[in-house]
Amino acid sequence: MNELERIEALASHFGAAGPGVRVGIGDDAAVFEAGKGALVWTIDAQVEGTHFKTEWVSWEDIGWRSFMAAASDLAAMGAEPAYALSALVLAPSVDDAALDALARGQAAAARTVGAPVIGGNLARGKETSITTTLLGRAEKPIARSGARPGDGIWLAGDVGLAAAGLLALMHGVQDARISAALEAWRRPRARIEAGRELARSSAVTAAIDVSDGLARDADHIAQASHVSFVFDRDRLLAHGGASLITTAGTLGRDALDLALYGGEDYALLVTSAAPIPGFSRIGDVEALEPGGARLHTRGPEGKLPLEPRGFDHFA
Amino acid sequence: MNELERIEALASHFGAAGPGVRVGIGDDAAVFEAGKGALVWTIDAQVEGTHFKTEWVSWEDIGWRSFMAAASDLAAMGAEPAYALSALVLAPSVDDAALDALARGQAAAARTVGAPVIGGNLARGKETSITTTLLGRAEKPIARSGARPGDGIWLAGDVGLAAAGLLALMHGVQDARISAALEAWRRPRARIEAGRELARSSAVTAAIDVSDGLARDADHIAQASHVSFVFDRDRLLAHGGASLITTAGTLGRDALDLALYGGEDYALLVTSAAPIPGFSRIGDVEALEPGGARLHTRGPEGKLPLEPRGFDHFA
Repeated sequence: MNELERIEALASHFGAAGPGVRVGIGDDAAVFEAGKGALVWTIDAQVEGTHFKTEWVSWEDIGWRSFMAAASDLAAMGAEPAYALSALVLAPSVDDAALDALARGQAAAARTVGAPVIGGNLARGKETSITTTLLGRAEKPIARSGARPGDGIWLAGDVGLAAAGLLALMHGVQDARISAALEAWRRPRARIEAGRELARSSAVTAAIDVSDGLARDADHIAQASHVSFVFDRDRLLAHGGASLITTAGTLGRDALDLALYGGEDYALLVTSAAPIPGFSRIGDVEALEPGGARLHTRGPEGKLPLEPRGFDHFA
Repeated sequence: MNELERIEALASHFGAAGPGVRVGIGDDAAVFEAGKGALVWTIDAQVEGTHFKTEWVSWEDIGWRSFMAAASDLAAMGAEPAYALSALVLAPSVDDAALDALARGQAAAARTVGAPVIGGNLARGKETSITTTLLGRAEKPIARSGARPGDGIWLAGDVGLAAAGLLALMHGVQDARISAALEAWRRPRARIEAGRELARSSAVTAAIDVSDGLARDADHIAQASHVSFVFDRDRLLAHGGASLITTAGTLGRDALDLALYGGEDYALLVTSAAPIPGFSRIGDVEALEPGGARLHTRGPEGKLPLEPRGFDHFA
């Protein structure tokens, strides 16, 4: 089974979510009622060897990016971060200095996001992993399932730049022109302020954070909402801006490929019937035709189907 | 640094917990205000090779016991379990059938505890780990810091039996007389109902769940409350009952050692000025004398100091 099939199999075991649950398994975060509003709850793990290697990144950066990856799920729900817990599985190679740096990175990210770490767990293992769970508050959490034909597709934040940074690190490329890409991978920022804009808007119909790649994550919305996505290639490249094009050129990669398939920038991808401050429009939501593709690009040669690939942990 | 020193070092990075936080780093669970009451939040990881080996236990049992280990922290705060998230790091050896069994065990435990799994995360790794975070509600969460001289020490649930079961599994002992011990290790139960009794009582001053061993966990309360614990050896052995004595005899171990140092039974250890339904008294809280030991046993030979040892993940 691939990752999505595994999630579906798990969901079938865990069954109905029960009273008070507004959003269960299968979205960026779970949502349940608490007092007058709702609490939004997410968990994310970063595993050594799978998500990072210590040759590429400092322990402080590992702490930072693991926290931001989790916080990004709250941004995608339009939630205001409140608190976090951190569960560390530490290999013997993580000495006291490394743990100190890891915690410093987590704490800096927690301050930036506004969600203090109020507890956690320590365990030893052969492989280090950092699991972060965050709670946030939302009056009106935004799920993946509300996109409608006629909505625009909107994006806040970079896409492709972090993947370019990772490629440069994997291949040992050293070049001053890719410093923005390295920074994007090492020090991503959860788009909390953009998430607040989503919460303020009444036109937003669906949202997701781009962790696995734009095409893959857009497909999650398209599937959940039963619609088709059409990305405008020129707008998408213009959104990426000079950094992405320069970096792609330096690495000998296609900028559009990076933008469509690169993950870990933690941009916010949104469908909305009206503009949202801080977001730029990169395409249109259309009705899903029977037998038709869920994703497309539109360029000089017309509308072309787009593969919903990205990074699959279990492919 | 040992585990406690590492937790203190982490706490110094994460700093003040901020507004609305009643209990931060260093207790069984974090507690923060939510509406009229409080939410109690915990996270726990079970790591292959550290906490379990698949030679000893089925994937279904691994799912069950990982969930119960986390739920036990809520019981120790007197909280009513509400919801759970599950983050799985899966090694390639976890095939679809193993994942199915793992989820079945988690789901059965979630139903027993009354906290449905409403979300989670999947990642791949070289080493499998199951991280569970649970939220519960409490009007009056019970911390570790309230024990006072004159209180009794009370216990609900077995101590030592799970450790005996683990020893039997590690040494390949097969004997019908130890089936209760095997069951105790493979299928522990979070003492949710006993936790509810704590919430109902006005005499309870401190509580902890016995995960690392009675001596180690009692020392956490004694430290946080600045008191001394005196365990009555006869009462403790009587509490362990026939199962513990039979199992210890079969394994050639000392029953009192198992009771004092064995972990993973998830009994509840409580200090209280009055009896609590379902709990039996095993000793007394006394004033801490300057330079005196925090833990003691009392038997025919009088009061003896007791080492606060147990299972330390980083010793």
